[in-house]
Amino acid sequence: EVIITMSGAVNFKNCGSVLITGANRGLGLQMVESLASGGFSPGKIIGTTRNLTGAQKLQELVQKYSNVHIVTLDAVNQESIEKCVEEVGQLVKDEGLNCLINNAGINVVAELHSVTAEKMMENFHTNTVAPLMITKAFLPLLKRAASRGASRTMGIQRAAVINVSSLLGSVELNWGEGANTFRWYPYRASKSALNMVSRCLAIDLEPDGILCTAIHPGWVRTDMGGSEAPLSPEESIASVLSVISGLTEKEHGSFMSFTGEQLPW
Amino acid sequence: EVIITMSGAVNFKNCGSVLITGANRGLGLQMVESLASGGFSPGKIIGTTRNLTGAQKLQELVQKYSNVHIVTLDAVNQESIEKCVEEVGQLVKDEGLNCLINNAGINVVAELHSVTAEKMMENFHTNTVAPLMITKAFLPLLKRAASRGASRTMGIQRAAVINVSSLLGSVELNWGEGANTFRWYPYRASKSALNMVSRCLAIDLEPDGILCTAIHPGWVRTDMGGSEAPLSPEESIASVLSVISGLTEKEHGSFMSFTGEQLPW
Ligand SMILES: NC(=O)c1ccc[n+]([C@@H]2O[C@H](COP(=O)([O-])OP(=O)(O)OC[C@H]3O[C@@H](n4cnc5c(N)ncnc54)[C@H](OP(=O)(O)O)[C@@H]3O)[C@@H](O)[C@H]2O)c1
Ligand SMILES: NC(=O)c1ccc[n+]([C@@H]2O[C@H](COP(=O)([O-])OP(=O)(O)OC[C@H]3O[C@@H](n4cnc5c(N)ncnc54)[C@H](OP(=O)(O)O)[C@@H]3O)[C@@H](O)[C@H]2O)c1
Repeated sequence: EVIITMSGAVNFKNCGSVLITGANRGLGLQMVESLASGGFSPGKIIGTTRNLTGAQKLQELVQKYSNVHIVTLDAVNQESIEKCVEEVGQLVKDEGLNCLINNAGINVVAELHSVTAEKMMENFHTNTVAPLMITKAFLPLLKRAASRGASRTMGIQRAAVINVSSLLGSVELNWGEGANTFRWYPYRASKSALNMVSRCLAIDLEPDGILCTAIHPGWVRTDMGGSEAPLSPEESIASVLSVISGLTEKEHGSFMSFTGEQLPW
Repeated sequence: EVIITMSGAVNFKNCGSVLITGANRGLGLQMVESLASGGFSPGKIIGTTRNLTGAQKLQELVQKYSNVHIVTLDAVNQESIEKCVEEVGQLVKDEGLNCLINNAGINVVAELHSVTAEKMMENFHTNTVAPLMITKAFLPLLKRAASRGASRTMGIQRAAVINVSSLLGSVELNWGEGANTFRWYPYRASKSALNMVSRCLAIDLEPDGILCTAIHPGWVRTDMGGSEAPLSPEESIASVLSVISGLTEKEHGSFMSFTGEQLPW
């Protein structure tokens, strides 16, 4: 049984633009769909995919909703990141980008007996380094959004970076019961390092008024989460979007669960 | 002013063998020297270096102390790791290895404006992946040591893995005052991921009776720490060795300061 404490209603009406990486399937696709179909839709929803031809469902959303856009992005390719920023810049123009959601991620499954240096490096590249390099590349657009508008309050109406992390990245919770399953070195190391990167970014982006928070979406039935997971993508993302739309200075630099609670590092 | 609470006397007499990576200079060299010169010396002290010709000081210790040995190890080279395990196996024979200290590390200095994917990957490889792959390769020798002897208590008299981490790897402490300086993404991410790896290893090695702890040595005047650091290598390592020699089940899976206190993740 999963108890979800909604931290408030989902409201992206005051958010001019949201970009979601890895939006062709799983949680990223659900974010685009839930944002587009809700009565609280942001001005522009930009979903990225690394492979346009394999992104039928995202393409369908582009057809169905006028505020949904699609841009190509391979998260581990610097050239692709820079091209993506350029295209997004043309979409959002002077308004900048209000909300960047670093969702794309992989799980290179390996326990102690099967872990290799290559597996550790690959997972770290996609889950830790990519969100950092993507955020860095989008800084001019995020700063532009943060510097506009009357509100000096931090949040998605101004500018925010959301890093989709995982409970499995909590070193503290990786003990006792929390350590009986999922003994995955590459994934756990990548997400704890992502939490550090997220906290570093929070410190460095605060002077510009850009909020930064890491979020655990729950264990969800996607290709990554598998069929045993307790949450549907709809359930998870309803909560995740509710948490994101309610973020303020109070949650800046922290690690939130989709339930609205703060998680230990 | 640095207040050091010694957690007890340094005593490695009951420890048959200790291996220290990166022992040709800095904290690793000091560990070899302090262990060899103290009245509490372990049976065998094995210092590793990736470059024999550049390890004069370590060579001098080999000449001076009959229980000091030198073995070649490049921490980011799997072939070199396996060759090192073989050589160490010939040194320790049936007794196995009692204490592995993963000390070798680098600081690829980069703040937000200068960080690149390559810098992140390089620091992660040396500081996070290497300790994992080295520990994995030494497991047969560590298990051999753990399964011998009458003591069922965890500690260096049986078998232990010590990962030299850093306060800068604490996500919790990277806030407020703790975040005003050293905004180094590659180093911080690598050490927080090392803390996760250390905790994962603690869980996986516990059934074999192998203790695993991460340790912060303080800010020390070495090539890495620089001349502004408050501690001399002698001071730091006296405390670090005192903490290591006092480790029990209580500190298994935790993150200790050289002062003997537990640090937050
Ligand atoms: N599902 C869960 O239970 C769960 C729990 C905790 C955290 N999370 C986190 O939630 C996020 C989304 O997970 P999910 O369950 O939706 O996973 P998923 O179903 O496997 O989808 C992963 C998405 O990331 C994209 N991606 C991976 N590598 C990429 C790259 N180099 N460049 C661009 N896109 C890339 C994939 O694109 P392709 O289709 O091109 O591969 C796909 O769109 C991840 O960060 C994951 O770690 C999930
Ligand atoms: N000094 C501090 O204030 C401080 C504070 C917190 C934590 N630490 C940690 O303490 C440990 C030791 O630091 P230190 O101050 O003694 O640093 P250092 O003076 O720079 O010495 C680093 C040692 O690591 C070795 N090393 C680096 N990469 C290697 C590799 N790929 N293979 C084998 N050896 C390698 C170096 O060998 P070469 O000579 O061949 O390069 C050298 O022996 C590190 O893990 C560091 O992160 C230090």
